[in-house]
Amino acid sequence: MARSQYQPKLPSSLWGAVKAVQGEPTQSVADQEEIKALFPNTYGLPELTFEKDPKQSKLAGAQFNVGVILSGGQAPGGHNVISGLFDGIKAINKANRLYGFLMGPGGLVDHNYVELTSEIIDEYRNTGGFDIIGSGRTKLEKPEQFEKGLVILKELNIKAVVIIGGDDSNTNACVLAEYYKAKNVGIQVIGCPKTIDGDLKNEMIETSFGFDTATKVYSEVIGNIQRDCNSAKKYWHFIKLMGRSASHIALECALQTQPNYCIISEEVEAKNMTLDAIVADIAGVVAKRAAKGDNFGTVLIPEGLIEFIPAMKALIAELNDLLAAHPEFAGLDAAAQREFVLNNLSEANAASFKSLPAGVARQLTLDRDPHGNVQVSLIETEKLLSEMVGNKLKEMKEAGEYVGKFSPLHHFFGYEGRCAAPSNFDADYCYALGYNAAQLVNCGATGYMSSVRNLTKPSVQWIAGGIPITMMMNMERRNGEMKPVIQKALVDLDGKPFNKFASKREEWALNTCYLYPGPIQYFGPAEVCDQTSRTLYYEQGGK
Amino acid sequence: MARSQYQPKLPSSLWGAVKAVQGEPTQSVADQEEIKALFPNTYGLPELTFEKDPKQSKLAGAQFNVGVILSGGQAPGGHNVISGLFDGIKAINKANRLYGFLMGPGGLVDHNYVELTSEIIDEYRNTGGFDIIGSGRTKLEKPEQFEKGLVILKELNIKAVVIIGGDDSNTNACVLAEYYKAKNVGIQVIGCPKTIDGDLKNEMIETSFGFDTATKVYSEVIGNIQRDCNSAKKYWHFIKLMGRSASHIALECALQTQPNYCIISEEVEAKNMTLDAIVADIAGVVAKRAAKGDNFGTVLIPEGLIEFIPAMKALIAELNDLLAAHPEFAGLDAAAQREFVLNNLSEANAASFKSLPAGVARQLTLDRDPHGNVQVSLIETEKLLSEMVGNKLKEMKEAGEYVGKFSPLHHFFGYEGRCAAPSNFDADYCYALGYNAAQLVNCGATGYMSSVRNLTKPSVQWIAGGIPITMMMNMERRNGEMKPVIQKALVDLDGKPFNKFASKREEWALNTCYLYPGPIQYFGPAEVCDQTSRTLYYEQGGK
Repeated sequence: MARSQYQPKLPSSLWGAVKAVQGEPTQSVADQEEIKALFPNTYGLPELTFEKDPKQSKLAGAQFNVGVILSGGQAPGGHNVISGLFDGIKAINKANRLYGFLMGPGGLVDHNYVELTSEIIDEYRNTGGFDIIGSGRTKLEKPEQFEKGLVILKELNIKAVVIIGGDDSNTNACVLAEYYKAKNVGIQVIGCPKTIDGDLKNEMIETSFGFDTATKVYSEVIGNIQRDCNSAKKYWHFIKLMGRSASHIALECALQTQPNYCIISEEVEAKNMTLDAIVADIAGVVAKRAAKGDNFGTVLIPEGLIEFIPAMKALIAELNDLLAAHPEFAGLDAAAQREFVLNNLSEANAASFKSLPAGVARQLTLDRDPHGNVQVSLIETEKLLSEMVGNKLKEMKEAGEYVGKFSPLHHFFGYEGRCAAPSNFDADYCYALGYNAAQLVNCGATGYMSSVRNLTKPSVQWIAGGIPITMMMNMERRNGEMKPVIQKALVDLDGKPFNKFASKREEWALNTCYLYPGPIQYFGPAEVCDQTSRTLYYEQGGK
Repeated sequence: MARSQYQPKLPSSLWGAVKAVQGEPTQSVADQEEIKALFPNTYGLPELTFEKDPKQSKLAGAQFNVGVILSGGQAPGGHNVISGLFDGIKAINKANRLYGFLMGPGGLVDHNYVELTSEIIDEYRNTGGFDIIGSGRTKLEKPEQFEKGLVILKELNIKAVVIIGGDDSNTNACVLAEYYKAKNVGIQVIGCPKTIDGDLKNEMIETSFGFDTATKVYSEVIGNIQRDCNSAKKYWHFIKLMGRSASHIALECALQTQPNYCIISEEVEAKNMTLDAIVADIAGVVAKRAAKGDNFGTVLIPEGLIEFIPAMKALIAELNDLLAAHPEFAGLDAAAQREFVLNNLSEANAASFKSLPAGVARQLTLDRDPHGNVQVSLIETEKLLSEMVGNKLKEMKEAGEYVGKFSPLHHFFGYEGRCAAPSNFDADYCYALGYNAAQLVNCGATGYMSSVRNLTKPSVQWIAGGIPITMMMNMERRNGEMKPVIQKALVDLDGKPFNKFASKREEWALNTCYLYPGPIQYFGPAEVCDQTSRTLYYEQGGK
């Protein structure tokens, strides 16, 4: 396949011999004392920046082996991180070897691995998916796991483990780095920032890989749907987009496609909006468009919405407690269950429960995870919203506030984008992250995340280096305990991408300003093939 | 946008001056006497083939105006048919004008139109959608409509109407051609073969436009899902694909992506399969893969399936009659409704009804169209099948015939593909169809469909001409009456594309042979950008 021939571009600082330039010692973003106490050996490390080494003519180093792990959900470009890492360690020393632990962090613990040879690597260059070694969700957090891992790492003579994952996986990478450093076993741990959700970012990590490609795939199909919508002129499309909590994906897709409506969960929470308020707002847009004769439109919905609606969050929390305390609930019939819930909830939450369409309300009491909690991701928010909007429009019609037809259609996009072949941006960025990780290993770093910055500039000007993971941490409550974790980046309501959206949405709502980005292109002119996400573009000063 | 610069390629026979070469008089595919009687003026016409005219140095002709109509569902490439038509009539005479009737055939009847100038045309070249003039589903079949149309056609001095549509729209185009010819009003009617469903084809019309692009878009996202499936290794994806009746789309996507299972409705009907038999077959594949440790997979489902299952067809027909005869049914509660249905259906249909998951069975008695019929398209076949497969697997587990985990996910793709920007193939094919239609108008043809053939060859070698629409007709029962209609092309179970699939499916089911076609490329090497559909490739002798 022609795509495998693509040679990802590296920052010029990584061409040939490199030296690591140390910056100032760093501090965690918050809770410095606690984080320092938990990470005595990996706290306060300096930032590292790689520069051309004028003293050496060629990149070279001692022989070492590296292990690599894919952790958590798929994201486009994972295979390029691995091929960049492979090429990076081979450039340092031809005898270096790369081992892949299979099906996620569990592969390290259970000693399932494969050596990644050039034959295997070449088959996966520039492809999507994590199928080269598989991924998994086992959390590396217990000393027993670290010890089991140590056995195989020593056996394979591995100097460093590269963990490719999201915020939690990188937090755990740092815990592992700290553990091995405290034990002085000579094994380094390096993280790589992965997640389509786009919520692993900060000043030093400009974006997580995969976000660019996934949002471009979603925007392609959203654009196609909008073109259909604008041709048929008779449907309202409610489109839910994957993303566990933050709304970066929805915001980015809105900036790329200019839909009539896009919900941003962070704004819903900040404004303390109820579900009814959101529904009324959408219904208002539907009515205004209908008044112009436009009985069609598009609505983007972030998957994590429900938990950002304060009233829903409160309802779900009380429901979880209530049903956990009443195992007899399961034995009641549907009508009795509903009555039980309404009688036992607080007044405010009972009102929220009552306001929901019956099917959704029932779903909240049925689909529960093994811990007895509502499985929020199973709620079909796109259908919930369209049903409620339909009901609201009926009321408005009776009140003479709406004249029109409302035919909703529903979509959910997620799995379509996580394993797409990487865009040129992600292909380059991922390859650079992996190649750069090899340099971090070579210079002895541990507890660092591979960092490639300056991303809206041409890739030769990208800045490569390492950022101490502790620098991104703060203390947060998780399952009732305070834990050191990498701060999740939610959509910043004062940030440039959101402001751009907020300044345009009124116009996009009433007029039809759809954009149709089309499929990702690999081979064409740079203005088609090599654009970053709109989020990154606006964040870095684009107008 | 760079894509608008693409210059679609024309067959070399349409470069410069052309002459129409007449073939032998034609016959309809069946029911010759009836069709001839219904179309005395447009029956038996010769095929036309365009060749370079050695006697003329330049394409030229008298001044004329043309009207164009988009009819029915969207298909990628419609804008290129129109731009080809525009360029074609302008090449004949610069003073020629093109009028677009708005929102489908209704625009002709109601005199809603716009003149399509080069400014408008240039904005839409190589774009997806039908939004340039909109489309609609008004059926042109009554003399009053033809007469109303005639008023505006005369007013605008229009010599010919080009109707871009599917089998029904082209049938009606021919009825209109016959009507105007019989009245001798001097207005020609030309059809163009459009539908993503791929069921408007025959010896002379090798494929309908839009099928190529739509199936490539679906295959892109199916491929991405398969890569995800093969990375996560924990889900079975049930993927429904649009297509009103024929399974060409599902078959083409299966050939492009090699899923673990693909249902072909035509085979289900031919083998007289029950829903239970399909479910058992899928469950068998799930169990065999699970025995190898592979608890994941993909299933493609054609949207029209239900009506091809003989037992379901019988059940739905009896339900329609039963409920129409018992208006009191609506007043019963859910349990009573179910009992009523079970007591009043024939034994065989009651058994089918009982075998359905309760939710689906209920849906069959609820969602009815304005004529009181079950709205088959509302049945979520993908969920129906996965639920029944899950139940079947439970039984098999108890019987010791299955060990594994079964977690299904669901998708429906349709609106994502109908308005995609056309692939290079569809961009060229559509442009050629439109340009060719202009030549048919110029040579005085009416009741013809624009035909461009030899499509697996390079576009310069394509054969352009016109096919009498009556040639594709037979008599079929529609709403209780025998009507002349273009024969729909269902999947041919003796044809090469199906045979290719059938010879491979066993292997694709048990092993994981997924292909990941990736997004449509416009700018790259020809082997990436200029492939036809697999269906066309195999039909024309590809191995």
